[in-house]
Amino acid sequence: MSESNGKAAAEVTSISLLKETMKQEEVPHIFVILGASGDLAKKKIYPTLWWLFKDDLLPKNTIFVGYARSVLSISDIKNRSEPYMKVKDGERTKLDEFFKQNRYVKGSYKEEDGFEHLDDVLTAIEDKKKDKPANRLFYLALPPSVFKDVTKHIKAKCMSKRGWTRVIIEKPFGKDSASSADLSNHLSALFTEDQMYRIDHYLGKEMVQNLMILRFGNRIFAPVWNRDNIASVIITFKEPFGTTGRGGYFDEFGIIRDVMQNHLLQILSLFAMEKPGSTDAKDIRDEKVKVLKRIEPLTLDDVVLGQYVGDPDGDVDAKEGYLDDPTVPKGSVTPTFATAVFKIQNERWDGVPFILKCGKALNERKAEVRVQFKDVPGDIFSGNCKRNELVIRVQPGEAVYCKMMTKKPGMSFDVEETELDLTYGSRYKGVSMPDAYERLILDVFCGHQIHFVRSDELAEAWRIFTPLLHKIENDKPKPIEYKYGGRGPAEADELLKKHNFVFTGTYKWAKPAL
Amino acid sequence: MSESNGKAAAEVTSISLLKETMKQEEVPHIFVILGASGDLAKKKIYPTLWWLFKDDLLPKNTIFVGYARSVLSISDIKNRSEPYMKVKDGERTKLDEFFKQNRYVKGSYKEEDGFEHLDDVLTAIEDKKKDKPANRLFYLALPPSVFKDVTKHIKAKCMSKRGWTRVIIEKPFGKDSASSADLSNHLSALFTEDQMYRIDHYLGKEMVQNLMILRFGNRIFAPVWNRDNIASVIITFKEPFGTTGRGGYFDEFGIIRDVMQNHLLQILSLFAMEKPGSTDAKDIRDEKVKVLKRIEPLTLDDVVLGQYVGDPDGDVDAKEGYLDDPTVPKGSVTPTFATAVFKIQNERWDGVPFILKCGKALNERKAEVRVQFKDVPGDIFSGNCKRNELVIRVQPGEAVYCKMMTKKPGMSFDVEETELDLTYGSRYKGVSMPDAYERLILDVFCGHQIHFVRSDELAEAWRIFTPLLHKIENDKPKPIEYKYGGRGPAEADELLKKHNFVFTGTYKWAKPAL
Repeated sequence: MSESNGKAAAEVTSISLLKETMKQEEVPHIFVILGASGDLAKKKIYPTLWWLFKDDLLPKNTIFVGYARSVLSISDIKNRSEPYMKVKDGERTKLDEFFKQNRYVKGSYKEEDGFEHLDDVLTAIEDKKKDKPANRLFYLALPPSVFKDVTKHIKAKCMSKRGWTRVIIEKPFGKDSASSADLSNHLSALFTEDQMYRIDHYLGKEMVQNLMILRFGNRIFAPVWNRDNIASVIITFKEPFGTTGRGGYFDEFGIIRDVMQNHLLQILSLFAMEKPGSTDAKDIRDEKVKVLKRIEPLTLDDVVLGQYVGDPDGDVDAKEGYLDDPTVPKGSVTPTFATAVFKIQNERWDGVPFILKCGKALNERKAEVRVQFKDVPGDIFSGNCKRNELVIRVQPGEAVYCKMMTKKPGMSFDVEETELDLTYGSRYKGVSMPDAYERLILDVFCGHQIHFVRSDELAEAWRIFTPLLHKIENDKPKPIEYKYGGRGPAEADELLKKHNFVFTGTYKWAKPAL
Repeated sequence: MSESNGKAAAEVTSISLLKETMKQEEVPHIFVILGASGDLAKKKIYPTLWWLFKDDLLPKNTIFVGYARSVLSISDIKNRSEPYMKVKDGERTKLDEFFKQNRYVKGSYKEEDGFEHLDDVLTAIEDKKKDKPANRLFYLALPPSVFKDVTKHIKAKCMSKRGWTRVIIEKPFGKDSASSADLSNHLSALFTEDQMYRIDHYLGKEMVQNLMILRFGNRIFAPVWNRDNIASVIITFKEPFGTTGRGGYFDEFGIIRDVMQNHLLQILSLFAMEKPGSTDAKDIRDEKVKVLKRIEPLTLDDVVLGQYVGDPDGDVDAKEGYLDDPTVPKGSVTPTFATAVFKIQNERWDGVPFILKCGKALNERKAEVRVQFKDVPGDIFSGNCKRNELVIRVQPGEAVYCKMMTKKPGMSFDVEETELDLTYGSRYKGVSMPDAYERLILDVFCGHQIHFVRSDELAEAWRIFTPLLHKIENDKPKPIEYKYGGRGPAEADELLKKHNFVFTGTYKWAKPAL
C-alpha cells in the first residue's frame, strides 16, 4: 500500500484529531523495537511507548514486538524498562494491559532467517483482521555496525503487505559527507523518503516545534525577521557536566557532531528558512534545505574550539578534566566546546551572523535561541537604549521573552530594561509537556514527517561541517582549555563581540511568579 | 528672570537628579494654591504637596501659601485636607513639619489689592535670603468665572522679581474653539508659553508617560508602527459608575469634552506622532501638534453617541439612569458615551482608523490603548491565526502585553492565542506608583513641560471637535440608550467592526501570578 497520509497529517494539524481517525478505523499497528535488549530500548523506547499507551494516544490494536539476539521474556523486558517508566499508583492495571500487548522475538541481526521468523509473527498478529490494512513500524535502536544488514532484511522480509511500513532511525547518520551519503544511498535503495523517519530529538521539543508558529503565525514578527532589523542570532546549548566515564564514545564524535551539526543546525534552519507554502512536511523541508544551501562550509577561522580541564576548586565531578576521563584516549584534541559563526548568503540574511555555541562542563544547562536586534537609530534617550532581544528558551523551563526598554516605573523619566514574558511554567501551570520522543513516535504513527530529517537536509548539514571536521582531524589543532563549570573560552565571547553581538550585563531577568 | 531650565530638564531626564541640583542650590520656592478653600485644593492639591514633601522630593525651603476668600487658619486647612492625605503612623512629625511650611492669605479674586497683599507675604518669605533667586508657582484651583481676573492680578502684582514664575491651570480650557482661543489669548498676553502649565492629568499616568519610551526606545516596534502593519488602534476609557448627583456639572460638558477631547486625544497624539528630534518639551509638543493637524474635524457620521438608562435589575446605583439624576436638566441629550473614528491623513497612518471610545456607567473601569495588527498574510495554519494585538493598559493595573499565537503546548501542532506579558503588579512588586498629580506638580518645579498641554495643541484639539459639538448642541440628536453596567450601545461595536477592528472573543487573558 502506498504512503498516503503524510499530506493528510499536515493538513489536519491536530494530531489528536488524526489519532481519533486512526482509532476509529481500528487498523492494527505493529511497532517493532529492533535492539529490544539494549540501553536505548529500555531507557527510552519502551517508556515512551508506555506513556503514549497509558494516555490513550496510540491506535487501538497496537502490538509492540521486541527483537534482539538475547533470550528474553516479556517480564524480563518489563523488569528492565520499568525503572524508567515513572509508573504511578493506580496505573498498574494499565501497565499490565500494556505488557499484554507486547511480544518478543529472538533473532540475529546479521542473518535473514531471523527476519523471516519475525515476519511470520507479525503476519500472525495481523491475520486476526484479514480484510483490514495493517501497518508496521520499525524502530532501529541499534549500533551502526548492524544497521545496514537489518535494514536490508526488513526490506527483504518484513515489509507490510496490507498497509504501510515506516522505519525510524537514530543517529549517528554517518561521520561526514561521504559516510553519511553511503548510508543514505543504502537506505534510499530500500525505502522511499516517506518511509524513513530520521530522529533528531531536538525536533521533538516544544519550543523548537513552536518556532515555526511563532514566526509565521504572528504578524508582528514578519517585518522584523530580517537583516534590516536583526543584528545577530545566537543559538546556544550548554551542559553543566562532562563526559563522566562515557568519554570514549564521545571522543569518536566530538561536540560538533554530537550537538552542533544536528540539533543546533536544525534550529538554525527552522529559524532562518523562508515561509513554506504550507505546513506539509515536503514544503517545510524544502525550505530548510533551501536555506542550508546558502551557507558556505565552515573553516577553522569561523570557530573557537575548547576542551575542558578540571577545576581543582570544584566539586568531585568538576575536578576531572576531559583528558582525566580514563575512557578518553590520551592526548585527545576532540573539542568539548565549539562556537561557530555562520553566514547565510541570501536576501533575508546577508550580513547577519548566526552564532552556534555548544559545550560540555559549562556553568549551566541551557538551550536557547537569542535574537539580538539592531540598535535604536537616533536614540533620543541619551544613548541609554539597550538592544532588544527575543529569546526562545528551549530548556530548561520553556519560555519566550522579549527584552525591551521601558520607562523606569515611578517618578522618573529614565529608561530601563524589562521584558515581555511568556514563561510556560507560569502561564501554563499544570500543562504537562510530553517528552520529545513521545511526540516524535506519535508523529510516526500519524505519518507526520515535519519533525524528521530528510536525506537532502542531512547531506547539506554534512556539506557545511565536513571540511572543518576533516581539517580538525588532520591538523589536530589544540583546543583552548577552559575550566569545568565556567563560561567556556574567553575567545568565544570575543568571537561573538566581533560578530555583532553586544553583551552589556545590565539586564536583570525577573523570574515570574509561578 | 528668563525661563532657562526647560531645556536642561529635558536633557537631564532624571527628575531625581534635577531635584538634587535644586536642593543643593537651596533656592526658595513658593507654591501658591489659589482656591485653597475649595474641593480640588483639599482633595488633591494639599495631599499631593504632602506626598511630595514627605518623600523629600521638593526643593528645600519650599513654602506653601494658600489663598482664598474665606477666613481660614492653617489648622483649618489641615483638618479639611488630612482625610485625603493617607497619613501613616510615624509620619506625624513630618506632617507637622509640612504644615509649619504652610501659610494662608485671605483675599478677593476679583480685586487687585488682595494680590498686592499676597505679594507682600511672598516677598517677606523670600527676603530671608536676599541675595538668592526665588521662584513662585501658582496653582489655579479656581472656577472659570474668576480665572481671567486672577491671572491678570498675578501678572500685575505677584510675578517673582528674583526667579521664575510658573502658573498651573486646570480644565475647562474653554468649551469650543472660540472660547478656548479667547482664554489662550488672554493668557498669552500675560505669560510666555513656558510659564504656563496646562494640566491634563492623563499625561501624568505611568503608561501614558511610558508610551514614548516604548515606541522610540525599542527597535522591534519601529518597523511595525505604521499603516503597513496596523489594522486599527482603539483607545478606550470606561467608567463603571454614572454621575450620581454630579450630573448637573457634567451635563454642561458631556463625555466628549470631559474625556475624549483631552485625555484620549492626548494619548492618540503620543501614540501616533513622529519621533521627535529630542525629548525636549518643544520638540515633543511640535510633533503632537503636527499629527493633530492631519486630522479632519469630526462629523456626526464618525460617532456613536449614547446615554445610559437605569437597569431595573441592577444594584441601587445602577437603577438610576442619567436622566433620573435630579441635577440633570430634564430631557437632556448630553452624551454619557461616545465612540468616534479618527483618520490621520499622513504617510504613516493614511487609512488606519483610530477609534476613541469612552463612557460612564459601563461594565468596567478601564483605560487602555489597543493596537490591532493586520491579519497574517498567507496564513499556513488553516486560517487559525488571530490578529496580534499590543495592549497598553493605563488603568487599573498598569500593563503592556502582546496577544500572539503560539503552538498549543503539549502534543498537538495546533495554534492558539497567548501573550507576551509585562504586568506591573507582577513584575514590579513593591514599586509604588506615584499619583498623576504628584508627577505633574514635581514636573512644574523642574520646569519639565513634556507632560503639559501647549496652547497650539489645545487649539488643534478644539478644531477637531468643535464642529461636532456645535452640531450636537444645535440639532440635539437623541443619543442611543444603553443600560447602566453594560458594554454601551451595540452600534458602537458595529462602528468598530466597520473600521477594521476584529473581535473574535476567543482570547482568554491569563492573569499573571502576583
